[in-house]
Amino acid sequence: MKKVSHIKIKGKMSVNELVRQMDSAGVLGAGRLGKAVNICEAMIKDNDCKVFLGLAGPLVPGGMREIIIGFIENKWADAVVTTGATLTHDLGEALGYRHYQGNANADDAELLKKGFDRVYESYMPNKIYEGMEDFIEKNFERLKGKSSIKDFLWEIGRLTPRKSICKACFENKIPIFCPAISDSGIGLMMWGQLAKGKSAETRAFEDLKEIIEIAWGAKKAGVLYFGGGVPKNYIQQAMQFAPKSADYGVQVTMDRPEPGGSSGAELKEGISWGKLNPKARFVDLICDATIAMPIIYAALRERIKA
Amino acid sequence: MKKVSHIKIKGKMSVNELVRQMDSAGVLGAGRLGKAVNICEAMIKDNDCKVFLGLAGPLVPGGMREIIIGFIENKWADAVVTTGATLTHDLGEALGYRHYQGNANADDAELLKKGFDRVYESYMPNKIYEGMEDFIEKNFERLKGKSSIKDFLWEIGRLTPRKSICKACFENKIPIFCPAISDSGIGLMMWGQLAKGKSAETRAFEDLKEIIEIAWGAKKAGVLYFGGGVPKNYIQQAMQFAPKSADYGVQVTMDRPEPGGSSGAELKEGISWGKLNPKARFVDLICDATIAMPIIYAALRERIKA
Amino acid sequence: MKKVSHIKIKGKMSVNELVRQMDSAGVLGAGRLGKAVNICEAMIKDNDCKVFLGLAGPLVPGGMREIIIGFIENKWADAVVTTGATLTHDLGEALGYRHYQGNANADDAELLKKGFDRVYESYMPNKIYEGMEDFIEKNFERLKGKSSIKDFLWEIGRLTPRKSICKACFENKIPIFCPAISDSGIGLMMWGQLAKGKSAETRAFEDLKEIIEIAWGAKKAGVLYFGGGVPKNYIQQAMQFAPKSADYGVQVTMDRPEPGGSSGAELKEGISWGKLNPKARFVDLICDATIAMPIIYAALRERIKA
Amino acid sequence: MKKVSHIKIKGKMSVNELVRQMDSAGVLGAGRLGKAVNICEAMIKDNDCKVFLGLAGPLVPGGMREIIIGFIENKWADAVVTTGATLTHDLGEALGYRHYQGNANADDAELLKKGFDRVYESYMPNKIYEGMEDFIEKNFERLKGKSSIKDFLWEIGRLTPRKSICKACFENKIPIFCPAISDSGIGLMMWGQLAKGKSAETRAFEDLKEIIEIAWGAKKAGVLYFGGGVPKNYIQQAMQFAPKSADYGVQVTMDRPEPGGSSGAELKEGISWGKLNPKARFVDLICDATIAMPIIYAALRERIKA
Repeated sequence: MKKVSHIKIKGKMSVNELVRQMDSAGVLGAGRLGKAVNICEAMIKDNDCKVFLGLAGPLVPGGMREIIIGFIENKWADAVVTTGATLTHDLGEALGYRHYQGNANADDAELLKKGFDRVYESYMPNKIYEGMEDFIEKNFERLKGKSSIKDFLWEIGRLTPRKSICKACFENKIPIFCPAISDSGIGLMMWGQLAKGKSAETRAFEDLKEIIEIAWGAKKAGVLYFGGGVPKNYIQQAMQFAPKSADYGVQVTMDRPEPGGSSGAELKEGISWGKLNPKARFVDLICDATIAMPIIYAALRERIKA
Repeated sequence: MKKVSHIKIKGKMSVNELVRQMDSAGVLGAGRLGKAVNICEAMIKDNDCKVFLGLAGPLVPGGMREIIIGFIENKWADAVVTTGATLTHDLGEALGYRHYQGNANADDAELLKKGFDRVYESYMPNKIYEGMEDFIEKNFERLKGKSSIKDFLWEIGRLTPRKSICKACFENKIPIFCPAISDSGIGLMMWGQLAKGKSAETRAFEDLKEIIEIAWGAKKAGVLYFGGGVPKNYIQQAMQFAPKSADYGVQVTMDRPEPGGSSGAELKEGISWGKLNPKARFVDLICDATIAMPIIYAALRERIKA
Repeated sequence: MKKVSHIKIKGKMSVNELVRQMDSAGVLGAGRLGKAVNICEAMIKDNDCKVFLGLAGPLVPGGMREIIIGFIENKWADAVVTTGATLTHDLGEALGYRHYQGNANADDAELLKKGFDRVYESYMPNKIYEGMEDFIEKNFERLKGKSSIKDFLWEIGRLTPRKSICKACFENKIPIFCPAISDSGIGLMMWGQLAKGKSAETRAFEDLKEIIEIAWGAKKAGVLYFGGGVPKNYIQQAMQFAPKSADYGVQVTMDRPEPGGSSGAELKEGISWGKLNPKARFVDLICDATIAMPIIYAALRERIKA
Repeated sequence: MKKVSHIKIKGKMSVNELVRQMDSAGVLGAGRLGKAVNICEAMIKDNDCKVFLGLAGPLVPGGMREIIIGFIENKWADAVVTTGATLTHDLGEALGYRHYQGNANADDAELLKKGFDRVYESYMPNKIYEGMEDFIEKNFERLKGKSSIKDFLWEIGRLTPRKSICKACFENKIPIFCPAISDSGIGLMMWGQLAKGKSAETRAFEDLKEIIEIAWGAKKAGVLYFGGGVPKNYIQQAMQFAPKSADYGVQVTMDRPEPGGSSGAELKEGISWGKLNPKARFVDLICDATIAMPIIYAALRERIKA
């Protein structure tokens, strides 16, 4: 049995040096964060492994946008699944809007008057919807015929004026999936067009062919989840079709297993479903994604040549 | 200021009598549960109010199926939004399968061999997929042309051999929405057909027209959430189109606001977005849905003539 | 394997009838609440079993005072361990003060001016301290010589003018322990006397003799925890001295195991320590105590002749 | 209003550089961690400020022992309050025992046989109790007469053979308090002596004089909590006696406010009590202490000359 090594901090340390210390502590949050970085490193460096990145929660209003784009541009992910909200926040920023540092105890009726939509302590300017409406209206002809949501999102990426998550996926040919795209500001803007009598042909089940094909064809698979929700679950169900289920798994969430929902379910549970290989290397980390993601990313940047 | 009344238990009490005691305690979980029942009662009894019921989490594996069907059959909801998992669990039971009482500490590799898929401490027999595959294959011709997910689900309800959530919605003409339907066993069975070269025309954005029309046309609106996820968020965004935003709100979840995600966001946050009326009656209850839902339902049954 | 029975609500049900339904659902929060009542019933009815009741958290400001007194007066507990805060709230109420229904989003600086101390959404009038100061000052001579905290608390119970937790313990000769009594309003009032140069002889380690003697002499032991903290841990360490460790265990808390602290630790963990018998009947319930306690108590009242 | 700056990771970064990036993101976990370091830096550098450090949870089994000792040796704390468990784990290590990296899903009955006590996924060898029993027995004559728990703990520190938290406090003349000392392995070892008919005079209320005197005499006060429980609450009540209440506050915990207990209460709540100055700089951080503590400490080490 390995001893718990007490973390030693000596003068200026790099993030990865600290993570190595955490790894040798080996238990609880610190130990799990150390292990998470090790497993991420392994799945990214394993050339046989397809990495599925699931992203949920307020990552863009939380300042994680550059890091997510980094994951994609470094080709550390082979497929991305996210929420409509993340893509809406991302498109808003790509159109020149920003999120603001706010207050979780704000007077929400006051914010309503001032035109700010609160996301806990981050504020989104409500006029973001105007910019998105213009963008979708102007580009509707290009978007309406995309039969899969992934093609729809790649097209948004192609059309987006500035660097963005969608654009990075499009340019790097990384498939990006968003099963619940209608549940988002982008969805609402599409509805705005439909409400005028136009029609959009994007199909609900179509993307399954592509994500399952990626899983099916992967010699090995790794899953990396920041947050739960549909992104995690959608990747999990694709893992049922990976030849050996997932070989690597890292989950970072504040959700817990006891209520029984998919978001908080331990990765281990996936073994029973054939989603996770019984011999997989995996770890569940209970941590705010905005804390864990920069640490994991920074440590990986020290370990992996970009 | 009202005093906290200490709850008095005298001999045999009905559920509603206990809830009334909790209401006069007036604070913390008990007080909020009391208030939740009051607000549910008000929104259901208000003839001008359209009630939107959001359902997420393992409600069917958790024994809530009859209660959910009760909500629909009592016409206590005017629209239902749920997850693909709930509909999959529901369809499985409608096809004659059941969920089982298991163990959260089970050996998942053993369960895999025995053919049980674990949902925390509930088990789903894996052969449920065979029954669903047959059902979808047999009925594919009837399903493939449904352009909205709601019509797709009503058709499933129509075709379902036994009582079910979908069937109750279909028979009572309660619209049921599931934006992320592809993220589910039902989605996988549809993929099974697509993988054979067939085609399904259900569209991703189509349902927005219907849910927003309901919100738009409602004199008042009430939201009742068990769990968060896409169901809550999808109703929340429809509320932006209700003439006065939501007038009543009850949220039951174990998720918390601090990580900033939609699932755990306090209802109050919705005021800034124009989703909740600043004068609305609302309450957030942090409680396992399988505890709160039967209590709320039983108390309502005492208060409202079916 | 047992099926998950779907909970059926038919007209007016008693609390115990609902709990029985939850028990036959058998999983998640509802199933665990059902099981919790069964185990409480068993430990209380088992004449060989000494029941240790641990109480932490804002139970008095949360309206649970009558129920706690009921547990004691029904002799459903053989020893009580609680926090200084609970005893302070209890003494305050016994001296004629009350707690009030407040608002979790209140302006705390405003409350400070108005003389209300906030406990989430419950308010304690700050002048409670004056009443307690008088009480302690007036009775200091009787209190100062008590060598164990238990004797100190029984004396407070004896001196208390109205019904209270301490008084119920004193009158029913149920030992009540509070290792961290100095960490409370009562502690501060004692300090007020010490600051005047008086001296109090209550000893820090003395109570251990009594609680361990109870554990040591018990043919069987049951533990019932509402909240964690010192009360749970203090009982847990006494269980190391029970001849067969605890035979029954019920834990109700919102704390979780992952941070590794005692409060959220699963009861199962106690097996490794010799605190819980490997063959014990036990359950962990993640639930707000103000919801679970009245339900458990009401169901027990239907099952057990008082 | 400040924009949320997206965190940029460029090559090798020091921990403090990453924390600075988090600070300019400014929201959610990352922003709060950034703010926590700023406030810690300010309270430590403020020569008029007395810093009260509260420590709860499995910090020693979690690998935080060197860091805690560092806080003390750097004189970053003027008073320490902790749990009996922490002091027990610390003494165990000072006597030559270690904690081990274990498994949260271990078979606890097996661990019982092997002599390991589980603390989530950390294991403590049960024979630690033998070493402690010898230590307490051998030194009982020196310990029995200490009238305050602080003096008792300083004496333990003095007697401890190796570097330890208690020893660092003793050597640096930093008062260390532990109101619930009887609720711990050290308490049990003292009981072992009492059970032999010996007597120990340490008094329950005595320490209040010293901690309140420190608060009373402080021009300014800062509170830094890792975990809640008695340590936090005991410092909080001392703050009622600080001339201006606490001027700085940082709280790191996984506990939440909704259950209403002291551990999870937001610092803001303390304003109503006169524990926190309405103009104080403070932040609540929801994070595993084993993750936050090394980051905070490492960042401070870059900012503050030791």
